[in-house]
Amino acid sequence: MNRLWIENGTFVTMDDARPIIKGHMVIEGDRIQYLSEQAPTIENAARLDGRGLVFMPGLINTHAHSAMSLLRGYSDDENLQVWLEQKMWPMEAKYTDADARWGTALAVIEMLKAGTTAFVDMYDRMDIVAQVVEQAGMRGMLTRGVIGLCPPDVQTAKLEEAKQFAKDWNGKAGGRIRTMMSPHAPYTCPPDYIARIIEAAHELQVPLHTHMSESAAEVEQNVKDYGCRPVEHLDKLGFFSRPSLVAHGVHLTDDEIALLAEKGVAVSHNPASNLKLASGVARVPELLKAGVTVSLGTDSAASNNNLDLFDEIRLAALIHKGVSGDPTAVPAYEALKMGTVYGAQAIGQASDIGMLKVGMKADFIAIDSEQPHFYPQTEMISHLVYAGSGRDVKHVWVDGEQVVRNGICTLIDEEQVLAEAQRCFERLSQH
Amino acid sequence: MNRLWIENGTFVTMDDARPIIKGHMVIEGDRIQYLSEQAPTIENAARLDGRGLVFMPGLINTHAHSAMSLLRGYSDDENLQVWLEQKMWPMEAKYTDADARWGTALAVIEMLKAGTTAFVDMYDRMDIVAQVVEQAGMRGMLTRGVIGLCPPDVQTAKLEEAKQFAKDWNGKAGGRIRTMMSPHAPYTCPPDYIARIIEAAHELQVPLHTHMSESAAEVEQNVKDYGCRPVEHLDKLGFFSRPSLVAHGVHLTDDEIALLAEKGVAVSHNPASNLKLASGVARVPELLKAGVTVSLGTDSAASNNNLDLFDEIRLAALIHKGVSGDPTAVPAYEALKMGTVYGAQAIGQASDIGMLKVGMKADFIAIDSEQPHFYPQTEMISHLVYAGSGRDVKHVWVDGEQVVRNGICTLIDEEQVLAEAQRCFERLSQH
Repeated sequence: MNRLWIENGTFVTMDDARPIIKGHMVIEGDRIQYLSEQAPTIENAARLDGRGLVFMPGLINTHAHSAMSLLRGYSDDENLQVWLEQKMWPMEAKYTDADARWGTALAVIEMLKAGTTAFVDMYDRMDIVAQVVEQAGMRGMLTRGVIGLCPPDVQTAKLEEAKQFAKDWNGKAGGRIRTMMSPHAPYTCPPDYIARIIEAAHELQVPLHTHMSESAAEVEQNVKDYGCRPVEHLDKLGFFSRPSLVAHGVHLTDDEIALLAEKGVAVSHNPASNLKLASGVARVPELLKAGVTVSLGTDSAASNNNLDLFDEIRLAALIHKGVSGDPTAVPAYEALKMGTVYGAQAIGQASDIGMLKVGMKADFIAIDSEQPHFYPQTEMISHLVYAGSGRDVKHVWVDGEQVVRNGICTLIDEEQVLAEAQRCFERLSQH
Repeated sequence: MNRLWIENGTFVTMDDARPIIKGHMVIEGDRIQYLSEQAPTIENAARLDGRGLVFMPGLINTHAHSAMSLLRGYSDDENLQVWLEQKMWPMEAKYTDADARWGTALAVIEMLKAGTTAFVDMYDRMDIVAQVVEQAGMRGMLTRGVIGLCPPDVQTAKLEEAKQFAKDWNGKAGGRIRTMMSPHAPYTCPPDYIARIIEAAHELQVPLHTHMSESAAEVEQNVKDYGCRPVEHLDKLGFFSRPSLVAHGVHLTDDEIALLAEKGVAVSHNPASNLKLASGVARVPELLKAGVTVSLGTDSAASNNNLDLFDEIRLAALIHKGVSGDPTAVPAYEALKMGTVYGAQAIGQASDIGMLKVGMKADFIAIDSEQPHFYPQTEMISHLVYAGSGRDVKHVWVDGEQVVRNGICTLIDEEQVLAEAQRCFERLSQH
C-alpha cells in the first residue's frame, strides 16, 4: 500500500481536541494513518518536506451546479427570478452533452485547484457529471435536480432518471461518489411531485437536497399557493423525515430555525450568491446558535461568479458581523468549520472527511504559507479565513491520491478543458 | 529613453470611451505612449508577448496604515473601540523604527504583488514609511496622522513633525511620493487642534485626510461633545475647504451625503474592515448617486486582515446588492472604477493614473487570465471583479518601471522582509 510521510508541516486539523499540530502526518492508502508532533518510525514511505506549507482538510462545497460555469458572467446585476427564468433557463435549454461535460470539467478544475475536495452537485445529465468527477479524482455528492413544471409523463420520466442515477452511482468511483434525490425547489415542483421524490429517497435510502427560502418573493408565493411558508410546507410533505440539506435558507423565522434544528436539517449557506442576486443575508448567527449545521456553498459560477470556497469562508466571517453589528458573530474558527467539518456533517460524511485525524480519509490540501499575507505567522486559522485564497493552494489529495501538484491538476488536462469550455460557450451564445 | 512594446494583449483601460482594447501598448519612460488595436511602427523597443494576459491600471488603495501589518490576526472579533484602545494602541506604543520599517515593507510587498500600485498611508514614523515606498518603487500619498489626546506641547511637536514630513517628501522619489495632512479623527483631536492642522494644510497646499463616521458610537459621542455630527463638525472647522479624503463614512444621513457631494469630498470605502469590526455597511449606492467620489481602502491588515484590493472591489460589488435588496446596485464596472479611476480622483491624481490612456503614467498590472475562473473568456470586467484576486497578478509596473516580475518584487528582497517582520512581531509580543 502506498505511503506518504509529510515531514515538519503545520497541520490545521479542525479537530477541537488539537486544532493545530506542528509535526508529521503519514498517509497509508486512502487514509490518515499517523498525525503527531513526533516523527513516526516507518520505512518505505515517500517523503514530502512540509516546511513552508500549511496542511488542512479539503474544503467541502455543499451547493453547486457545476455545468453552469459556462455561464459565468453571462448575466450580472439581475434579480433571482429574471436571472433564472430569462437568462439561465433559455441558455440551459440549449445545453448538449458536450456543454454538460466541459462546463462540469471547468468547475471541477477550478474547485480542485482552489482546495475544494468534495462538492454537492445538483443538475441534469448527471451521468456525465459523475464521469467527470470520477476522472478528476474528486469526491462528489451528486443529484439529478428535477423541476416539476411539466406534464405528468415528463415528471415521471425525470423522476425515473433521477432514481436511476441515484441507484447507479451511489458508492461508485471507489466510494468517492454518493448520491441524493432533489426536487429543485418548492416553487418549481408541485407538492405531490415532491412527495414522490421523498418516497424515492426513502426507497433508495439516500438523503434529500433542495433550494429553500432563497428569496422573499418565493416565500410569499409559497404562502399564497400553499397557505404556509416553505419550511412548514416541506415538513408537512415529509421532506425532513430523511437526512436533508437545504440550500440558501435566507428568509427564515425563529420558528422555522427551531424546526430545522429539531429535525436535524443542514443548511448550505451561499453568501456570495445571495448577495449578488440581492436575495438577502441569511440568519447564520441564529442558525448556528440554534444548533443547525451550517455549511457553505458557492452556488453556480453564474451567480457568484467563482467557485473558490475560501471566498465564501471569508464572507461568512465578515458579513454577519457587519450586518448584525456584533463583531463576535461567526468567529474565524467557526467560519473555517463551516467550510470543512460542518460541510462533512451536512452530507453525512463527518466520520470520514472534514478533519485531519487518524483513521479518516486522506482528503487534504497544502497551502503555500510563505507569502506576505500569512505573515507574521501567528494566528494561522485567522490568516486562512481572513487572508487566505484558493490561489494559495499548492497541492491537493483526495482519497490519498494527489490530484493537484504544484497548482496543476494531475488527472485532467486543464488546457483542454479551458479550450473546450470556450468553444462550448461560443456555440451556445450563437444560436 | 526606455521603451516597452506589449504585443497582442487584452487591455481593460477603465476609459469609458473604449473600456476594452485587444491590441498593443507602448510605454516610453514613465508614460503610456501608444495604445491601439493596430500594431505600432516603432523600433528599439523591448517586447512583451501579451497573450494570456489582461492588462489594467494598477489598483489604488486610498486608506491604509501599513506598519500595522505586523498586527495581522492579533485581535479578531472585537469592536472598534476595544480593538483600537485595548489591543492596537498598547502594541503600537511599543513600536520602534525597525517595526515601522518592516511592518511597512510587509504591507508594501503584499500590496505590490496583489496589483496595488498606489496607496494612501496614514501613520507615524513617516520618514521610514517614505523610505520603504521609495525603495520598493511604489506610488504613495503619505501623511503623518496625528492624535491630539495629549498635552499642548506634545500636540505642537506632532503637528510640526507632520508639517516637516509633508514639506520634505512632497514630490520626492521622482514624484511618486506626495503628502497630506491628517488629524486622526474628530474623536481623537480637539477642534482647535484640527483647525491648526487645516491651517497647516493650506499653508503647505496639500490635501487633508481623516477618519470620519466609522462607528455609530463615535457619531453619538461627537453629538454629545460638540452638538453636531462629524460632517457638520468638520465642515464648521473648515476641513472641506481643502481637497479632502475621509475614510469610512459608514454612518451618514442624507444631508451629510449631500454636503459631501457639494464640497467635493472623496470617501474611502473600507468594506472588509467595516464588516469585520461590525461598524456597519456604508451607504455606497446613495453616495455614488449623489455624485460623491467613492474609492476603496483596505484599512490596516489588523482589521481586514489582508491588503488585496481585489477583495474590496468584490465586496463593494456584492454587499450593497445584498443589503439594499437591489441586484443592480454597484455594478461590476462601477466597483472596478472605485478601485482605479475613483481612487485616482480621491487623491487628486486623475490626470496621471487610474486609466490606461495615452499620455498617462505607466502604472499598470498584468493578470494571468489563463485560469479556470476567467473562463469562458467573455465578460472580462465582470470576471475581474467577481472572480479575480491579487494572486492572479503576474507583473506590475509603476512609473514605467517593472516592480513585480512573475509574481516577485524586483526592488525589495521579499524573503528578508518576511523574516524581519516575523522577528519584529515576536519581539513586540514578548515585552
